[in-house]
Amino acid sequence: MSAVVPQHSAPQQFASDNYAGICPEAWAAMAEANQGYVPAYGEDPYTDRAADAFRTLFQTKCEVFFAFNGTAANSLALAALCQSYHSVICSASAHVETDECGAPEFFSNGSKLLVAQTEDGKLTPDAVRALATGRSDIHFPKPRAVTITQPTETGQVYTLAEIHALSAVCRELGLRLHMDGARFANACAALGCSPADMTWRAGVDVLCFGGTKNGMAVGEAILFFDPVLAEDFDYRCKQAGQLASKMRYLAAPWIGMLDTGAWLTNAAHANACAQRLAARVAGLPGIAPMFPVEANAVFLSAPPAVLDALRARGWRFYTFIGGGARFMFAWDADPARVDQLGDDIAAVAVEALQAA
Amino acid sequence: MSAVVPQHSAPQQFASDNYAGICPEAWAAMAEANQGYVPAYGEDPYTDRAADAFRTLFQTKCEVFFAFNGTAANSLALAALCQSYHSVICSASAHVETDECGAPEFFSNGSKLLVAQTEDGKLTPDAVRALATGRSDIHFPKPRAVTITQPTETGQVYTLAEIHALSAVCRELGLRLHMDGARFANACAALGCSPADMTWRAGVDVLCFGGTKNGMAVGEAILFFDPVLAEDFDYRCKQAGQLASKMRYLAAPWIGMLDTGAWLTNAAHANACAQRLAARVAGLPGIAPMFPVEANAVFLSAPPAVLDALRARGWRFYTFIGGGARFMFAWDADPARVDQLGDDIAAVAVEALQAA
Amino acid sequence: MSAVVPQHSAPQQFASDNYAGICPEAWAAMAEANQGYVPAYGEDPYTDRAADAFRTLFQTKCEVFFAFNGTAANSLALAALCQSYHSVICSASAHVETDECGAPEFFSNGSKLLVAQTEDGKLTPDAVRALATGRSDIHFPKPRAVTITQPTETGQVYTLAEIHALSAVCRELGLRLHMDGARFANACAALGCSPADMTWRAGVDVLCFGGTKNGMAVGEAILFFDPVLAEDFDYRCKQAGQLASKMRYLAAPWIGMLDTGAWLTNAAHANACAQRLAARVAGLPGIAPMFPVEANAVFLSAPPAVLDALRARGWRFYTFIGGGARFMFAWDADPARVDQLGDDIAAVAVEALQAA
Amino acid sequence: MSAVVPQHSAPQQFASDNYAGICPEAWAAMAEANQGYVPAYGEDPYTDRAADAFRTLFQTKCEVFFAFNGTAANSLALAALCQSYHSVICSASAHVETDECGAPEFFSNGSKLLVAQTEDGKLTPDAVRALATGRSDIHFPKPRAVTITQPTETGQVYTLAEIHALSAVCRELGLRLHMDGARFANACAALGCSPADMTWRAGVDVLCFGGTKNGMAVGEAILFFDPVLAEDFDYRCKQAGQLASKMRYLAAPWIGMLDTGAWLTNAAHANACAQRLAARVAGLPGIAPMFPVEANAVFLSAPPAVLDALRARGWRFYTFIGGGARFMFAWDADPARVDQLGDDIAAVAVEALQAA
Repeated sequence: MSAVVPQHSAPQQFASDNYAGICPEAWAAMAEANQGYVPAYGEDPYTDRAADAFRTLFQTKCEVFFAFNGTAANSLALAALCQSYHSVICSASAHVETDECGAPEFFSNGSKLLVAQTEDGKLTPDAVRALATGRSDIHFPKPRAVTITQPTETGQVYTLAEIHALSAVCRELGLRLHMDGARFANACAALGCSPADMTWRAGVDVLCFGGTKNGMAVGEAILFFDPVLAEDFDYRCKQAGQLASKMRYLAAPWIGMLDTGAWLTNAAHANACAQRLAARVAGLPGIAPMFPVEANAVFLSAPPAVLDALRARGWRFYTFIGGGARFMFAWDADPARVDQLGDDIAAVAVEALQAA
Repeated sequence: MSAVVPQHSAPQQFASDNYAGICPEAWAAMAEANQGYVPAYGEDPYTDRAADAFRTLFQTKCEVFFAFNGTAANSLALAALCQSYHSVICSASAHVETDECGAPEFFSNGSKLLVAQTEDGKLTPDAVRALATGRSDIHFPKPRAVTITQPTETGQVYTLAEIHALSAVCRELGLRLHMDGARFANACAALGCSPADMTWRAGVDVLCFGGTKNGMAVGEAILFFDPVLAEDFDYRCKQAGQLASKMRYLAAPWIGMLDTGAWLTNAAHANACAQRLAARVAGLPGIAPMFPVEANAVFLSAPPAVLDALRARGWRFYTFIGGGARFMFAWDADPARVDQLGDDIAAVAVEALQAA
Repeated sequence: MSAVVPQHSAPQQFASDNYAGICPEAWAAMAEANQGYVPAYGEDPYTDRAADAFRTLFQTKCEVFFAFNGTAANSLALAALCQSYHSVICSASAHVETDECGAPEFFSNGSKLLVAQTEDGKLTPDAVRALATGRSDIHFPKPRAVTITQPTETGQVYTLAEIHALSAVCRELGLRLHMDGARFANACAALGCSPADMTWRAGVDVLCFGGTKNGMAVGEAILFFDPVLAEDFDYRCKQAGQLASKMRYLAAPWIGMLDTGAWLTNAAHANACAQRLAARVAGLPGIAPMFPVEANAVFLSAPPAVLDALRARGWRFYTFIGGGARFMFAWDADPARVDQLGDDIAAVAVEALQAA
Repeated sequence: MSAVVPQHSAPQQFASDNYAGICPEAWAAMAEANQGYVPAYGEDPYTDRAADAFRTLFQTKCEVFFAFNGTAANSLALAALCQSYHSVICSASAHVETDECGAPEFFSNGSKLLVAQTEDGKLTPDAVRALATGRSDIHFPKPRAVTITQPTETGQVYTLAEIHALSAVCRELGLRLHMDGARFANACAALGCSPADMTWRAGVDVLCFGGTKNGMAVGEAILFFDPVLAEDFDYRCKQAGQLASKMRYLAAPWIGMLDTGAWLTNAAHANACAQRLAARVAGLPGIAPMFPVEANAVFLSAPPAVLDALRARGWRFYTFIGGGARFMFAWDADPARVDQLGDDIAAVAVEALQAA
């Protein structure tokens, strides 16, 4: 097959952490699971073991479900917290608001997202309170849940204190707290704290733990720390087309990831690459970080000419209004290429300065 | 891992064709795709190649989409044919009616399934006409689509003439024809006809081609033979949580299946095992086929004592009201074990006769 | 205006109880409410008074809401009992199944109706049990509610004992009991029992009490006897387009109906007209009641020639497969015309006999 | 009944135009329609006549439907223009965004509202273009419709030129144009133009024409100027609980309103009252109009002490962040009381000045 598939130039590597493949630990677990016959729809031993691995990692008897992707996981979790006439408070930059094509509204049959404009993309207790209490009449959807992305879409990590403060205001106002953890492992690696500390001990009710960006082929885990919220959630997944018949292939990779610790080492490596680039480009003329580099993303503001020159050298990246570029490091980012990217940025930055 | 995973006794093998693993061709294609960086969300070369492989196989420029499972594929396809106030005609035994937990109604936001009770689970032009014309007032959902399962849930195969007759009545009545092909390959193998002949040349508008039961880990293909029906279908998939970020792992296995012909040889093998069992148990006292054996399923009626004795010998199977047992053969069913099953059925049937 | 509006011939009167106008008590209450300024959206005194009138009539502190029509009232009530992946058990002849164009599925975003085929259109505890326990896997929507129509669509009235028996099986199986009371008043008049006895004292959780057929212009009341079920139901109504801004015009007529007792006298009169016709046609050759006449409907089986002759005499009525005709008596049915209908049926029945 | 109903103090009059009752012309038409038997569900002659009256008024063969309220009318119309994965562009102050409790998302099963922040609450071609072209990937709902409120929620009226400019950009970008005309008559009265000029001749595809605020009890008309968009819309209304069984009571008032011209004289009177108040308070110290007074609303900014003093004099009104008060004039607003309100505002404004 390789003769036909075009070779992708290495520079593509840092456009997205979705561009990477499956990590060895996930692959090995899939290979091992690919033997013999096992019952379908999660009645297999791999699914039980994967769920138990999550319970061990999170040090609690949470309810664990598996969905195919993050859009579905987030939407199903939020739909479990809301009726159609309720609303969900999120940041303006939240993935559920900006990149899921209305999936939360679709799965919930209409729950509205109430969007907070915050300085850095992080929700704050004040922003939650303002949105949750701004309206209390039946002409506006009643707020019932708050969702935060950990780390945020721009790579910032909520501290434990920040999460505690958010969950406190949620409890006070009768709101449930959902965490979109598409890159949850990166946040754990960044803070050096336990998954339990970052979630249920900090007042999180539901977590979507992302596997795809962490090194798997497909699949996210949904963890309910309050079992009441998980009532009939298996039916919800089934009806919404998120129950895998050969569930072992969703579950087994998690066993590989969690049992070996790859979930954390993958994330730590990706974070380190981001730091590596950030350090390399610090102080370059015309180049500035758009956000603190805390997880596996580096957002740089740079003049258009610099970005053009970078593209001319073969690098691919997402760009943003106002001149930003995003570089995102996957579990297997090659440090040598990170350095090469840093060198290229430095070179084009200097060239641009000289041309000006 | 294997030390922990319990050994599944071989008799489980024939409870469901979902119990089997990934076939070598699909696995190899995944392994080959698991190299380097490729764009996400279907912008990768594997997705293009897989779509082209379908176009080649079906000898037409159809629109091709990939979904995670059959429930989602069917529901999305039907939702593309209907508004919420429309209805879909199906057989009473159709998977969409009996085993998808209301997914078609969920994805379409309410399209009702109009259920035809037919003798053998196959829809007929007369049944379609009766349901489509029985009501024409706005107090009842307007019929807009017909769905057939090929082969049916009980393993019968619509002949080409039958499909042509159904599509003729559909066209006459302004209905679209959807084919649930969860085991489409088995139908092709059974009839020995081309995929094109069984679908668009016979008047089928949309096909859901099942990959999971055919030997893949996950994934179904949705083929629109009328491009108008596919308008914005990519948005529909995304919103419904059916767009894989690392799409290559959904797409590449199809390349392996279609390019090597495994899709058809897998199915032919499974069908042959069903015939093998059917032949072995023909004429046994108290044992009778419940349905003609045309694909990879054998449904046997047998006295409760016979089924109990079979279970006591370790066999697992789905049972039905009235005393039936289903045996379903996967792409890798072991003929030796099929024979052993047949021998055991013969033994317990004779024992039951002697005990009576 | 009257010059333009065609005079409707009296024979149309008995085609439907929706063909009648507004009764004097409802009209007077509307006229009285049509004075001065009052707050909108139910914050007016009429709405409070109407809700209290229901609480007085039902001798309990139920939660009361108003919706525009019966389809919406039923669908909203059922949606409050179910999530999308749940199901609702109903009779095959239930209005929610046959005449609401998929509204229950739409409002609930997919809750499936599980249909019981019963001899006379009444649900039985056995039928409920069979449907509620037939499946318990996640591939089929989990039953959560039962709906009965009182009186049924064919005019039979559940006895108090029958309702008690149904609610007992509901409680045993964890199901909620909804009563579609589009003609609730007719059932009360038929049984001569109190609304309380027929509902919450018999185990009904939610009642939709029909005002339109009872003599109003528009409007149904939804009564929750368990306040937990009514949580945020006002938001549900608002989101679903069922909150009237000038709510007084939905509420005030109920005051007129309940305070004057017109709700019951209207219904009793309609029932008496049905009995009057039934008595008049009893024993006529070729004419037979299709169902016991217990409320305000008379269903007669009759030879096609008889029905044709009846139409030739100007009568209009709904007909059914197999030769039935429905006559439905409204709150203001004219007994003289009922007699005339009876005489005409007698005449054409005899003519048909002589022609044969 | 009047002994029990509390007398509402006149000052409530200007809190909302929903607080007013039914105008004589609508009442008379209802009374006239309340005679004899007519078929249900819109098969009556009143419904035909009302639809024809709209066609006459709009000088075109539009498709006409009736819904119970504005929330439903808007939501149904937008749902007819969009699939769930599409989006609707609206102003941040649009009623569909701020006061319909997520109804548009509910009826459409998820269509997202894309909100434009504009200076005065009016959408502009530039704002539409920016939102419609900002994203074109499948991770964001595809824009398919634009909705404008005429007049806006703060009482401004789009000029014909402005509507033409908006429809031009809609056509260019493949968007449909919906007009929320909850106070459509007020806009016609304000501009002195024909309904046709303000709608289909200006490129509007669908209009929701509000009857309630115009002097009716209940009911809005939905007019499709492109018949293709109205396909099966009657089914949509029925399924969504918006088909009145006794339709004559929704339809007949429209005949009364349109045939007598009350629709326009009612609106012109309300507008005149707004102008009367605006003129009376012009130049008062500390009092300033928040928006141009073009329809039947007056928004005034005033110091908190002024508003408190006004409330102390018995006036009721909606208030807004930053110190605004809304006065809304209904079809029957009493000019003497408008003057009294003006006098009171003047008095408290002067008092506040003296106290400062």
